[in-house]
Amino acid sequence: MEKHPGHFTVSEFPEMDKRFRTNLINSLSGFKSVVLVGTKNKEGVENLSIISSVIHIGANPALMGFIMRPTTVQRDTYENIMKSGYYTFNHIQPDFYEKAHQTSARYPKEISEFSEVELEPGYLDDFPAPYVIESHIRIGLQFQEVIPIKLNGTWLIIGAVKHIYFPDNCLSRTGHLDLQKAGTITVAGLDTYYKTKKLARLSYAKPNQSIQHLD
Amino acid sequence: MEKHPGHFTVSEFPEMDKRFRTNLINSLSGFKSVVLVGTKNKEGVENLSIISSVIHIGANPALMGFIMRPTTVQRDTYENIMKSGYYTFNHIQPDFYEKAHQTSARYPKEISEFSEVELEPGYLDDFPAPYVIESHIRIGLQFQEVIPIKLNGTWLIIGAVKHIYFPDNCLSRTGHLDLQKAGTITVAGLDTYYKTKKLARLSYAKPNQSIQHLD
Repeated sequence: MEKHPGHFTVSEFPEMDKRFRTNLINSLSGFKSVVLVGTKNKEGVENLSIISSVIHIGANPALMGFIMRPTTVQRDTYENIMKSGYYTFNHIQPDFYEKAHQTSARYPKEISEFSEVELEPGYLDDFPAPYVIESHIRIGLQFQEVIPIKLNGTWLIIGAVKHIYFPDNCLSRTGHLDLQKAGTITVAGLDTYYKTKKLARLSYAKPNQSIQHLD
Repeated sequence: MEKHPGHFTVSEFPEMDKRFRTNLINSLSGFKSVVLVGTKNKEGVENLSIISSVIHIGANPALMGFIMRPTTVQRDTYENIMKSGYYTFNHIQPDFYEKAHQTSARYPKEISEFSEVELEPGYLDDFPAPYVIESHIRIGLQFQEVIPIKLNGTWLIIGAVKHIYFPDNCLSRTGHLDLQKAGTITVAGLDTYYKTKKLARLSYAKPNQSIQHLD
């Protein structure tokens, strides 16, 4: 096998400029889910933070997780989830992705990122956490478990899906939500945002059978 | 707030057709990282499986995780990781995404998905796990820890990044890998693949300062 032109080994990581290393390592996980997390504290102050570490945990029961770094601006989000037990995930579209990114600024605890970035909080079906009105796909979650990752002091926060809101014309008869039609975007690394262009939906794979393009 | 037209609540999930529910819940996490995992067993049989649950755990030390369901076809991948301690993540491009999807078929243990789907295994810098030659961005990982998620019997597998290979013209001076230029694709749900179109890289967010488009 020919030597690949670009190559770093783990022994080079400590010598790298911190921001260079952060950008490089954050690129490795490919295109990522990016959502706005909506919460509210006991005093009624709403909080909104952008995260790019959402992960599907399971469909039955419906569970979603995300990784949190305790020392970051997401600390308010964590405290609100722990105290209220509820939070929302809101997909991001191109018409408000700059506002979504702006929520990562370090605002004081008493300030709501909703009002700072001018996104509208909304409450649906008596759920205690705020949704982002502008978002087309919104999920209401109830906190289930925090799993500490001792290797680097981060946490995996797991919640159960309680509500799903979506544009009616984006749901197929097979249960797929058409994320591209809904305008959901994706992120690479910490700061680079992308729209998508569908290649195809592929058939269920079986040995000795060709993959079909379904739509 | 107006009632959103499409809405499901958790009480409706048990009544749903299983495949419908699986597709729906898998859509919620948005566009996801999708990679091919390369491993080898003691007998020298190479294994390749597609996963869409990769997650960035941390940059320093450089750690990546993924969620595994013990009962799926990924069982061989898990056993190989546990026994050898090493595995590779390989980004997927449009020219071989059907082959990548085909690796999710249930092949017998003694069969290598590399040869079944016609992707070429390669070894670099004495690393014991096989890379996918066709892949532009490849990562060599050493197993660190498996964290059981008791809520649904899945596992979070965490590895340390040991090697990174990439096209030289895709690395910026800031450490960003240009994933779109490299041809990396993304997936929604279990079976729908997408290319990307960059919106912008955005500046670091600070309170009371406008977000800039950097490139």
